[in-house]
Amino acid sequence: MNDLYDVINRRRDTRSEFTGQPVDQDALERVLAAAHCAPSVGMSQPWDFVLVRSPQTLAAFRAHVAREREVFAGSLEGERAETFARIKVEGIVESGLGVVVGYDPSRGGSHVLGRHAIADAGLYSVVCAIQNLWLAATAEGLGVGWVSFYREEFLRELVGFPARVRPVAWLCVGAVGHLPEVPDLERFGWRHRSPLAEVLHEERYQPRV
Amino acid sequence: MNDLYDVINRRRDTRSEFTGQPVDQDALERVLAAAHCAPSVGMSQPWDFVLVRSPQTLAAFRAHVAREREVFAGSLEGERAETFARIKVEGIVESGLGVVVGYDPSRGGSHVLGRHAIADAGLYSVVCAIQNLWLAATAEGLGVGWVSFYREEFLRELVGFPARVRPVAWLCVGAVGHLPEVPDLERFGWRHRSPLAEVLHEERYQPRV
Repeated sequence: MNDLYDVINRRRDTRSEFTGQPVDQDALERVLAAAHCAPSVGMSQPWDFVLVRSPQTLAAFRAHVAREREVFAGSLEGERAETFARIKVEGIVESGLGVVVGYDPSRGGSHVLGRHAIADAGLYSVVCAIQNLWLAATAEGLGVGWVSFYREEFLRELVGFPARVRPVAWLCVGAVGHLPEVPDLERFGWRHRSPLAEVLHEERYQPRV
Repeated sequence: MNDLYDVINRRRDTRSEFTGQPVDQDALERVLAAAHCAPSVGMSQPWDFVLVRSPQTLAAFRAHVAREREVFAGSLEGERAETFARIKVEGIVESGLGVVVGYDPSRGGSHVLGRHAIADAGLYSVVCAIQNLWLAATAEGLGVGWVSFYREEFLRELVGFPARVRPVAWLCVGAVGHLPEVPDLERFGWRHRSPLAEVLHEERYQPRV
């Protein structure tokens, strides 16, 4: 029994906590089933999940991410550069499992109900699946780290997505010793969480002063 | 106590089940706090939530959605047109509350950690917040209906988002008598859910035959 609010509060983006222990197969199936149970525009279920465990593929992706980390680091100066240098951005090899999530806009027939006015609605469905996956993994005691230091074209080729399938995420999924109480970016002084009141508006958007 | 998996399975896109009873304020605050607790790229928390209850605004949005429904209906023929005619696509007025969700890419400072290579990573964060909101509302016994029959420019002007803020969703949130066990689109014969195995791949993407 895992209380929803408790899971939502415990969920963390995991980088350093992976133990390398294999993920229990039944737990992984429950996590993937939770993702597949997400809402989708016109019930198109436009996601794909590629489970990557090959050490060669994990290492190739990690090398690519390391290069992209350098690209971002090169854009920073002073305190930002120093703070970023302390932050780990991925646990690709340590987690032992990458779940690559793709968006296939051809799923759901030629007329997807609810997508004619908003082309990105299909993409939104895929992210709903990712969030379900993340929460279910948290409930199972697994860590998830969403890596976004990569170029989509590199990842598409790495896992063999056809041209129409857009890579949306690389998720490191694995056993963890614990989940940090404070998010890494806060702990290392990159950013702090804001109060809810700052993003709430009544009836109409009110610019903040 | 709401078990995560139970909530994930009970969650439905709600159209016809709203009772019009007012939403409990404490429950709404828990639901919005759950949304605000979502992961976000570089901890940018790039979402805004506008709570719309004004009958005039609800009616104006419903009229716009009705026109967009006709646009989509006009693209259909034969069985698809007949099936779609039976499907309700929104509960904007009946729910009594619209939560308009926006994406503000200016949030999070000039260098958002994790967004340099994937511009849409901020948009993904907003959708994670929506899915948290949806699950929390389900746990609170509330219905949520994600309406996507609208033009973004219309909604931006309706709630006064500045040009940089992108409307991502109109969510009808309200008290419901019950949540349907079978999704509407399945019940009315629009689409059926697929088995998980169809979207799972090992190591590399495998085209389905």
